[in-house]
Amino acid sequence: MKAIVIADKKLNWVDNEDPDCKDNEVIIKVKSTAVNRADLAQRAGLYPAPPGASEILGLECSGIIQEIGRDVVNRKVGDEVVALLAGGGYAEYVSCPEVQTLPLPKNINLSDGAAIPEVFATCWLNLFMEGNLKKGEKVLFHAGASGIGTAGIQLCNIFQCESYITAGSEEKVEFCIDLGSSAGTVRLENSFKSFKDLCPSGLDIILDPVGANYFEENLNNLAIDGRLIIIGILGGVNGKINIGHLLMKRQKIIGSTIRSRSIEVKGKVMSALHENIWDHFEKKIIKPIIYKKLPIKEADQAHKIMENNNNIGKIILEVF
Amino acid sequence: MKAIVIADKKLNWVDNEDPDCKDNEVIIKVKSTAVNRADLAQRAGLYPAPPGASEILGLECSGIIQEIGRDVVNRKVGDEVVALLAGGGYAEYVSCPEVQTLPLPKNINLSDGAAIPEVFATCWLNLFMEGNLKKGEKVLFHAGASGIGTAGIQLCNIFQCESYITAGSEEKVEFCIDLGSSAGTVRLENSFKSFKDLCPSGLDIILDPVGANYFEENLNNLAIDGRLIIIGILGGVNGKINIGHLLMKRQKIIGSTIRSRSIEVKGKVMSALHENIWDHFEKKIIKPIIYKKLPIKEADQAHKIMENNNNIGKIILEVF
Repeated sequence: MKAIVIADKKLNWVDNEDPDCKDNEVIIKVKSTAVNRADLAQRAGLYPAPPGASEILGLECSGIIQEIGRDVVNRKVGDEVVALLAGGGYAEYVSCPEVQTLPLPKNINLSDGAAIPEVFATCWLNLFMEGNLKKGEKVLFHAGASGIGTAGIQLCNIFQCESYITAGSEEKVEFCIDLGSSAGTVRLENSFKSFKDLCPSGLDIILDPVGANYFEENLNNLAIDGRLIIIGILGGVNGKINIGHLLMKRQKIIGSTIRSRSIEVKGKVMSALHENIWDHFEKKIIKPIIYKKLPIKEADQAHKIMENNNNIGKIILEVF
Repeated sequence: MKAIVIADKKLNWVDNEDPDCKDNEVIIKVKSTAVNRADLAQRAGLYPAPPGASEILGLECSGIIQEIGRDVVNRKVGDEVVALLAGGGYAEYVSCPEVQTLPLPKNINLSDGAAIPEVFATCWLNLFMEGNLKKGEKVLFHAGASGIGTAGIQLCNIFQCESYITAGSEEKVEFCIDLGSSAGTVRLENSFKSFKDLCPSGLDIILDPVGANYFEENLNNLAIDGRLIIIGILGGVNGKINIGHLLMKRQKIIGSTIRSRSIEVKGKVMSALHENIWDHFEKKIIKPIIYKKLPIKEADQAHKIMENNNNIGKIILEVF
């Protein structure tokens, strides 16, 4: 099969070995994959694939089931699916555990489906399973116009939570507010403007891909019983903390990645998505926000768009 | 009634107003109360009583129900109970919500019962409700010979978890190991010796009353998916954190106090104790570890014992 291989710092669409299908796995003929920040970090050598995972980039895809392992019970050859991958999506074929696939939602076309798994699974895991988000609570999404931000805002809409955002431009802030966010601000150079005016009672959850640069201000903006959930370190790793404030406000700081989790946990997240939000895709209440689609051969160009923070929502790479 | 009142930095047993009984409350004729670190902090002006709570010291007691509010359903006058209090235990009478009382366990005498509520409730809340402790996991208790440490070690024994401890002397370390702890070390001046040799896989939960002085070493010793639960700041508040490690190891830092929680949460904790561990008291599998009993008039002396870290387990103050 063809797959993206990194050589001379470039992404090349070249011949590669076909994936094996383990007993609990399916092989998917990939229709589309999508770009994630983790792909850029992996490409730069900063985020190696977890043990046992494909070295090929790509944490999600849509496609058609081509083969099933002997223990597979709920998927059959020919099914249109979307899948959360530990890697391998930038390819013609990819293997993944059955439990990490879901049927393509009705009313979503197969190509668009590739924009769903990673960001909705990340939001579900962190907001509901780690963060125990409750109706009426207030959530701040940094990078509100990212794939994760646009998924999170929509989840807040349907679960009757308020969302707030920061983003890199006025245009992005407006987009997020149109999507349902209560308020937002353009981020500052290495920090963000306090939300104490916009949200005086404090934020119940902050979903943060930035890390150190935002750390102190995040904690300043967190409500009593608030949860700061860190999912990235784009702004560095060295943070300072007033442990007394954390204690007296009963706050939590949670480090959370989805890629390194067990198949069992990923399966639980995907089941929860199927049970709780698939219906909302099918009724067109929510949708993946897609910025652009490029052919897989233009993966380099797609990465540049994300590097330059030009996208609002997801960037799709089309394989066939 | 008589109660302890702070004057000239001393604890004086003097006349004070009787407590009121609200509809959801009971009045307890206090047999005994017990000393907690929070009492010392409150006395020093560092830890004010939460809004609405009694200004009198004392976060737990045992005693006999003297009066019940009109909405009380599960307690009656004459019942022997133990109670988790928001304050007011250093007195002849104290009011508290019905749900924060439990019947005295069989085989525990009424005076000893006062040593149960605060430390077992704190451990239950933090290990199981906040920390989601699972069978087979490893827990580190700093101040292992404290009331909380000795309660926590015993909870680990009955729920098939391994416990490790630090303590202020070899004698205390030995006491904890006799009580069921797997291993322990004498604490260093402003830190503690790494547990990497004693527990190479890392600790799943660390219950920490120290804060800043132990913060970095706590995080170094925490396993993947580990939870650092901070319940005190005896060693300062200014901490440094490597957010990248927190992220890649999917760790949590949880600030947790019990005193400021809602009556509802406290009621849930007490119900859980009743359901899960009361039977173990009654079968003499666990017991409150009591260092010394003094008359309430000698509360000053009792505080000095705790200030000097001389106690192993709880210090009881007897009222009648």
